[in-house]
Amino acid sequence: MSLSRRLAAEALGTGLLLAAIVGSGIMGEKLAGGNVAIALLANTAATGAMLVTLIFTFGPISGAHFNPAVTLAIASQRGIGWGDVPVYILAQVLGALLGVGAAHLMFGEAVFQVSEHARDGGAQLFSEFVATFGLLCVIWGCTRLRSEAVPVAVGLYITGAYWFTASTSFANPAVTLARAFTDTFSGIRPIDAPGFILAQIFGAFTATVLFHWLVPSLPSETNTLVLPHSQARHE
Amino acid sequence: MSLSRRLAAEALGTGLLLAAIVGSGIMGEKLAGGNVAIALLANTAATGAMLVTLIFTFGPISGAHFNPAVTLAIASQRGIGWGDVPVYILAQVLGALLGVGAAHLMFGEAVFQVSEHARDGGAQLFSEFVATFGLLCVIWGCTRLRSEAVPVAVGLYITGAYWFTASTSFANPAVTLARAFTDTFSGIRPIDAPGFILAQIFGAFTATVLFHWLVPSLPSETNTLVLPHSQARHE
Amino acid sequence: MSLSRRLAAEALGTGLLLAAIVGSGIMGEKLAGGNVAIALLANTAATGAMLVTLIFTFGPISGAHFNPAVTLAIASQRGIGWGDVPVYILAQVLGALLGVGAAHLMFGEAVFQVSEHARDGGAQLFSEFVATFGLLCVIWGCTRLRSEAVPVAVGLYITGAYWFTASTSFANPAVTLARAFTDTFSGIRPIDAPGFILAQIFGAFTATVLFHWLVPSLPSETNTLVLPHSQARHE
Amino acid sequence: MSLSRRLAAEALGTGLLLAAIVGSGIMGEKLAGGNVAIALLANTAATGAMLVTLIFTFGPISGAHFNPAVTLAIASQRGIGWGDVPVYILAQVLGALLGVGAAHLMFGEAVFQVSEHARDGGAQLFSEFVATFGLLCVIWGCTRLRSEAVPVAVGLYITGAYWFTASTSFANPAVTLARAFTDTFSGIRPIDAPGFILAQIFGAFTATVLFHWLVPSLPSETNTLVLPHSQARHE
Repeated sequence: MSLSRRLAAEALGTGLLLAAIVGSGIMGEKLAGGNVAIALLANTAATGAMLVTLIFTFGPISGAHFNPAVTLAIASQRGIGWGDVPVYILAQVLGALLGVGAAHLMFGEAVFQVSEHARDGGAQLFSEFVATFGLLCVIWGCTRLRSEAVPVAVGLYITGAYWFTASTSFANPAVTLARAFTDTFSGIRPIDAPGFILAQIFGAFTATVLFHWLVPSLPSETNTLVLPHSQARHE
Repeated sequence: MSLSRRLAAEALGTGLLLAAIVGSGIMGEKLAGGNVAIALLANTAATGAMLVTLIFTFGPISGAHFNPAVTLAIASQRGIGWGDVPVYILAQVLGALLGVGAAHLMFGEAVFQVSEHARDGGAQLFSEFVATFGLLCVIWGCTRLRSEAVPVAVGLYITGAYWFTASTSFANPAVTLARAFTDTFSGIRPIDAPGFILAQIFGAFTATVLFHWLVPSLPSETNTLVLPHSQARHE
Repeated sequence: MSLSRRLAAEALGTGLLLAAIVGSGIMGEKLAGGNVAIALLANTAATGAMLVTLIFTFGPISGAHFNPAVTLAIASQRGIGWGDVPVYILAQVLGALLGVGAAHLMFGEAVFQVSEHARDGGAQLFSEFVATFGLLCVIWGCTRLRSEAVPVAVGLYITGAYWFTASTSFANPAVTLARAFTDTFSGIRPIDAPGFILAQIFGAFTATVLFHWLVPSLPSETNTLVLPHSQARHE
Repeated sequence: MSLSRRLAAEALGTGLLLAAIVGSGIMGEKLAGGNVAIALLANTAATGAMLVTLIFTFGPISGAHFNPAVTLAIASQRGIGWGDVPVYILAQVLGALLGVGAAHLMFGEAVFQVSEHARDGGAQLFSEFVATFGLLCVIWGCTRLRSEAVPVAVGLYITGAYWFTASTSFANPAVTLARAFTDTFSGIRPIDAPGFILAQIFGAFTATVLFHWLVPSLPSETNTLVLPHSQARHE
C-alpha cells in the first residue's frame, strides 16, 4: 500500500471513530431521560461496535491504529518505520477533528466547541494509565500470537473499559485532543487533555516493555507478525 | 445460483430485515415506559443481530445486498451485471413491503399505514449521507480484503450507526420506502423519503469512488473478489 | 458418537437453555423496577449468549438441536435417522423440564408451577409461525452453505426475534412445553401451548420446503453437509 | 513458554478481569439511578467483553485459566502438571487482589475493604454449583472439539450466567476471594466466601467427570487437545 492510501485510511477510520463516539454520546444523552447509565450503555455499544468494524475495514490498508499511542508503540517494536510516525499521527489528529465536526453537523450543533467537562485528579489519570496499558496488552498479545482476533478483541476491550475505568477509557491521544472540541456528553476540558495524554503514553510504554519480555517473538517472524497490515495483505 | 433463487433470497432477506426493524420498534416502544433510549437500544440490538444472521444465511445465495444502494454500487464495480439490477431492486422493495406487513400482523396493527413521523432538515439529510457513506466503506473494505468478515462488520456498523447519526441510519432506499408505510416507532413521513434516498445514493457513490482509489484490486482478482456470493460458492 | 452420549448432550444442552431462559426472566423482572423493556433486554442477552455457547459446546456431540421442530426438519432431509427422532425429542423435553426446575431452585421458587401468563390470539400464533420459519431459514441457509456460522447465527437470530415477534419467539416445542411449568416472567398458560407448538411446526415445515428449493445441495455433499455434528467430528 | 511468563500472564489476566468486575460494578451502580437491572447490565457487558478479550490475549501464553477451579479441572485431565497447580492458583489469587485494589484506586476508594454484601443460603450455593458446572461444560466441550471457540464461548457463557443464576455467577474461587475485599456492588461477605468456593469446586468436578464420559478424547490427541496454550503455540 502506498503511504498516501495508508494515511487516508488512518484519517478516515479515526474520523468515523470520533463521529461514533461524539455522535452516540449526543444521541444517548438526548434520549436517556437523565439516566446517565443508559446514555453510557448506548455510547459504549456504538463505540465498541464501530471499533470492530473499522479495524476490519481499514486494518488491511493501514494497520488501523487510529491512535498515536499505538503508532508509537508499534514503531518502537519496528512494526512501522519511525519516518512514518509523524504523518500517521497527523492523519489521526486531522481525521479525529473532522469526525467531531461531522458529528456536530449531523446533530445540528456548532461545528467546533470548547468542552467544559472536567475530568481531573489522580484517579482519572490512573484510570487512563490502566486503560491504555490494558489496550496495548490486548494489541500485543493478539497481534503476536493470534492476529486474526485483533478487531474483535480491541472492540470488546474498549466496551469493557468504558465501564471499569473512572475516566470511561479515552486511551488515545488523538481521541483526547478531538474530544476537547465538543461540549457534549463525551467532551473533556482542554486543560485536562495533556495529563490524559501523558498517562496514556506511559501506559502504552509500560505494556510494550512488559510484552517485549512476555512474548519474545522469534526474530525471523518479527517482520510479519508485528505488522498486522502487511501480514493481512499477504494472506 | 439461478436468478429466481437469488431474487427469492433478496426478497426474503429484506423482508425479514424489515420485520425486525419495524417489529422491534413496536415492541421496544410498547415496553420501554416512555424512555426512548431503551426503546432504541432494543431496536438496535434486534436490527444489528438480524443483519448479521441474515447475511450469513442469504449471502452465499444472492450476495445479501438487501439494499438498492448496495446493488447499484456493486454493479458499478462489475460485481453483478447491470441487467440484474432492476429485478434485484424490485425484489428488495417487494420484500421490504411484505416485511412491514408481516410485522404489523404480528402486533395486531393495520397491515399498511402512512407514517406521520417527520424526519426532515439538512442535519437529517447529512446524517443519511454519512450513514450510507460509512456502510459502503465497510462493505468495500471488507469485501475486497477480508470478505469473511462482511456479515459481522455490517451488522456491527449498523448497530453503531443507529446511535451516531441523527437519523438513526436508514442507509437503504428500500428500507426507507417501506418504513413510510408504518406509523410506528420506526416510520418516516412519505414526503421525507425522497430526500433520504437521494442522500443515501450520494453517500454510497462517494464511498465507492473513494475505495476505487483506496483499494485498487488486482484486475485478475476482481471477478471473484467483488462478488461475495460467487466467491462463497466456490470456497 | 454413541446414541447415549448424543441424548445426554441434547438433554443437558436443552436443560441449560431453559435454565437460562427462565432464570434470567426471574432475575430481570426482579431487578428492573417495573420497566418490562429492561427485563426483556436482560432476558434476551442471557438467552442469545447461552444459545451461542451451548451450540459451540454440544454441537459436535449431538448436533445441538435442543428443539423438536429442528429435529423433525433435519430428519425430513435425512440429516438424522427417523429412528432417532423420538428419543431426541424425549431427551429434549426431559432436559427442558429439568432446566425449569433448576432455575426455580436457584431462585428459591417452587420446583414446578403452572403458568397463568396468557399468550393467545391470532397475532401470537402468527408470531410463532414467523419466528420458527425464520429460525429454520437461518439453520438451513447456514448449515448447507456456511456451517461454521451456525452457533453465532442462531444465537443472534433469537436475540432479534425476542423483540420483533409479538410472542417473544418461543420457536421451540420443548421450550414451549417446559415454560408452561413456570409462573414467572417467561411462562405460558398450558392451554396456550398446543397452538404455539402447531404454529412452530408449520413454520419449520414451510422454511424447510422453501430451502429445499432455494439451496439444492449437491447429492454427493448431502450426507456431510446436512449433518452438522458428524461434519464437525471429521474436520 | 517459561513458567515465569505463564504465571505473569495468569496474574495479569486475572487482575484485569477483577478490575473489570469490580470497576464496572462501581460505575454501573453510580450511574444507574437506583435501577439495579441497569447496573447489572453494565456489569455484565463489561465482564463478558473483558473475558473474551483476555482469553484471546493470554490464552496462547498461559492457557488463560484465571480460575483455580479451571486449573484443578485441567490438571485432573493431565492438561497441566500437578506441580504447576499451586503456583498457578497463587498467581491467580495475587492477581485478583491487585485487580480489586486497582479498581478501587481508579474510583478513588479505599484500596482494600471488607464486604458486607450477604450472599448466603442454599439457593445461592446451588446457583454457584450450577454456574461452575456450566462453565466447565463449556470449557471441556469447546476445548476438546472446537478449541478456537473457547474465548467467545466462555465470555458469552458468563454473560448469560450473570443473569440466570441467583448469585450472579461468581464461578471462580479466586474471584470469590478477591470480591470479599470490596464493599461495593460486586462484593461478598468474607463469611459467605468458603461456601461459594466449595460449591464451585464441586460443580467443576461434576462437569469434568461428566465430560470425561461424554467426550472420550482419543488418547493420541489428549496431550495437544487438552492443552489450549500449547496447541495455540504450535499452530
